[in-house]
Amino acid sequence: METVKIGIVGVGNIGSFHMRNVLGGELKNAELLALCDINPEKLDRIQEQYGNRFKLYGDVDDLLADPEVDAIIIATPHYDHPVIAIKGLKAGKHVLVEKPAGVYTKKVREMIEEAKKHPELSLSLVYNQRMNPTYQKAKELVESGQIGELRRTNWIITNWYRSQSYYNSGGWRATWKGEGGGVLLNQDPHQLDLWQWICGMPERIFSFAYYGKRRDVEVETEVTAYCEYANGATGVFVTTTTETPGTNRFEIVGSQGKIVIEDEQLKFRRTVTDEKEWNETYTGGFGEPEVWEIKIPVAFDGSTGHLRVTQNFVNNILFGEELVAPATDGIYGLSISNAIHLSSWLGQWVELPIDEDLFLEELNKKIADSKDKDVKEKVLNTENTY
Amino acid sequence: METVKIGIVGVGNIGSFHMRNVLGGELKNAELLALCDINPEKLDRIQEQYGNRFKLYGDVDDLLADPEVDAIIIATPHYDHPVIAIKGLKAGKHVLVEKPAGVYTKKVREMIEEAKKHPELSLSLVYNQRMNPTYQKAKELVESGQIGELRRTNWIITNWYRSQSYYNSGGWRATWKGEGGGVLLNQDPHQLDLWQWICGMPERIFSFAYYGKRRDVEVETEVTAYCEYANGATGVFVTTTTETPGTNRFEIVGSQGKIVIEDEQLKFRRTVTDEKEWNETYTGGFGEPEVWEIKIPVAFDGSTGHLRVTQNFVNNILFGEELVAPATDGIYGLSISNAIHLSSWLGQWVELPIDEDLFLEELNKKIADSKDKDVKEKVLNTENTY
Repeated sequence: METVKIGIVGVGNIGSFHMRNVLGGELKNAELLALCDINPEKLDRIQEQYGNRFKLYGDVDDLLADPEVDAIIIATPHYDHPVIAIKGLKAGKHVLVEKPAGVYTKKVREMIEEAKKHPELSLSLVYNQRMNPTYQKAKELVESGQIGELRRTNWIITNWYRSQSYYNSGGWRATWKGEGGGVLLNQDPHQLDLWQWICGMPERIFSFAYYGKRRDVEVETEVTAYCEYANGATGVFVTTTTETPGTNRFEIVGSQGKIVIEDEQLKFRRTVTDEKEWNETYTGGFGEPEVWEIKIPVAFDGSTGHLRVTQNFVNNILFGEELVAPATDGIYGLSISNAIHLSSWLGQWVELPIDEDLFLEELNKKIADSKDKDVKEKVLNTENTY
Repeated sequence: METVKIGIVGVGNIGSFHMRNVLGGELKNAELLALCDINPEKLDRIQEQYGNRFKLYGDVDDLLADPEVDAIIIATPHYDHPVIAIKGLKAGKHVLVEKPAGVYTKKVREMIEEAKKHPELSLSLVYNQRMNPTYQKAKELVESGQIGELRRTNWIITNWYRSQSYYNSGGWRATWKGEGGGVLLNQDPHQLDLWQWICGMPERIFSFAYYGKRRDVEVETEVTAYCEYANGATGVFVTTTTETPGTNRFEIVGSQGKIVIEDEQLKFRRTVTDEKEWNETYTGGFGEPEVWEIKIPVAFDGSTGHLRVTQNFVNNILFGEELVAPATDGIYGLSISNAIHLSSWLGQWVELPIDEDLFLEELNKKIADSKDKDVKEKVLNTENTY
């Protein structure tokens, strides 16, 4: 194979974004072959614009039966992500899944099991923010021990502003049965992933989630989660879609240093001596170890990372390049997301790994009470919404 | 009275600081007349340095019986703050109390009741950070409605670094029976007060407190508290004495604006339209209201505020100048502090105002198990430790 022939499943907001991404001319060794959507109006609009340039499918099974399709990008509502990924793998297709990997971990675990049967196929996730150099550098600083032992994490991520009009743009949006979650599931998968990618998985979570707060929706629009890590470190995660101007500030504190990522800049300060050692030997009153402010040559370069994550997927298929975001990693951030809900529903601490059956049971209660929205679906301009 | 003659009760770290403050020459219409400490060694040291310049008392009752003393500054361990304040008022003295107003609200309430019987006497609290122009400006912006309706507060205050050596400098320090609390009671009273002074009192609190974490002490050294306000706003307060370099970042979010105070700077951004109104009328996809960054001519001027709060106390006595920090306000921050402990001890939400008897009951259990520390008491250099 010299060129990966791609089919996109779902051409709503994010599917259209992927379409422009693949067609943009910068993606190497790949071409857009086919598009699939259950809504014939969307396919009609594509045909109007592009004529017969692409193969158009109304049923994903027909797309997957097409031997010309090498790989698929899944951009459907969230519940279908692992379902279609499993189908795709079974049909022998490479799969790039939009985030989140799914709505509940039990189904994502099925996808992971299926993937084990197809080691020859690529299965990647659109965790495009893993391509951001500042987060990559933070991961490097933590893993290389530059900050010492992890002590505290804090992410205020409230710049995912979404209006009522946005929520009204799709009947499935922000409903339990159509989408399966709110800010944690639709907007925060990036941060929930990066949080654990850089700092590791927490051991237990206590959370405060608000459903339909300031928006007429079923799902969560504001959340604060608190966590403990196995080594005694603690963490806070604050998020909402109803705040403007939003904040995006990620603080990582270790026994020897502090990283703050805000306003697309990484700041790193480091004590000359590890705090633990310093504290054990200091004999004075109000002293502190000497702190150095260290300028690291890294900057957010403005890229959304979508092109990079897609190129990485294509290169993995063609050349075996290591995947930056294997879709099997998707279970980590989703576990945190599920744990946050479960804690707020039960009003108690939730240990990780979570009780997946209990989560699904509780989710199914929400789905049973979930109502259809009577709205006209719109495809929105997704520029700058990564 | 043309000059207020002051007696300082307790000449440890902070009492010595007040002594230098009064003697520094900048405090107008006041003079230091007397000093009191139960530890004769401390009085001896003062006599060595100053000869017979001051009246020295080993018993606070003798100091209070001295008709020449107009006013006292109470700088004893915390439990004694309201006890001595009540005695002082009964003796007809004006009283400036170090923070916190006390260890438990029930006793502070007694002080407030006593104060009501002496409207002619000044009773002020050393909430010196209320004198910081940036916090005063934040209060003005919130109260004047510039940020719209309060939505979210977040204070990360981890720059109160204290070593084990610090904790070992006094036998009463960081014990339940000697001090009655840790970072919340000794270091954070300023922030707990400013938090409520600017944003109002929360309605209920859930907290995660760690006792003796990373330090060999009985009391709390790390805390994260979560709160809800009556109008639906939420808040987070993160603090520890074991982090270096520390963070001091206070974020206040309203429906029309956001204030961030960090690195001694106040940043203010404001949406042209209130978010609520904007959301109700917007019909597009991913839009947000327009945001203006507004430069406000206010800066932290480097003053600790101690001199100002003392001058305000003196001016209140002599000229009736309004107190910026009446000691009766001390019950608010202390209520939050007590509520945070109570929540962590009980593992549940605590409503405010708290059940004061329950808190005292739980505190008394801690005191009953509290152990003396066998350390040699030291007076520490308090420069830059406000």
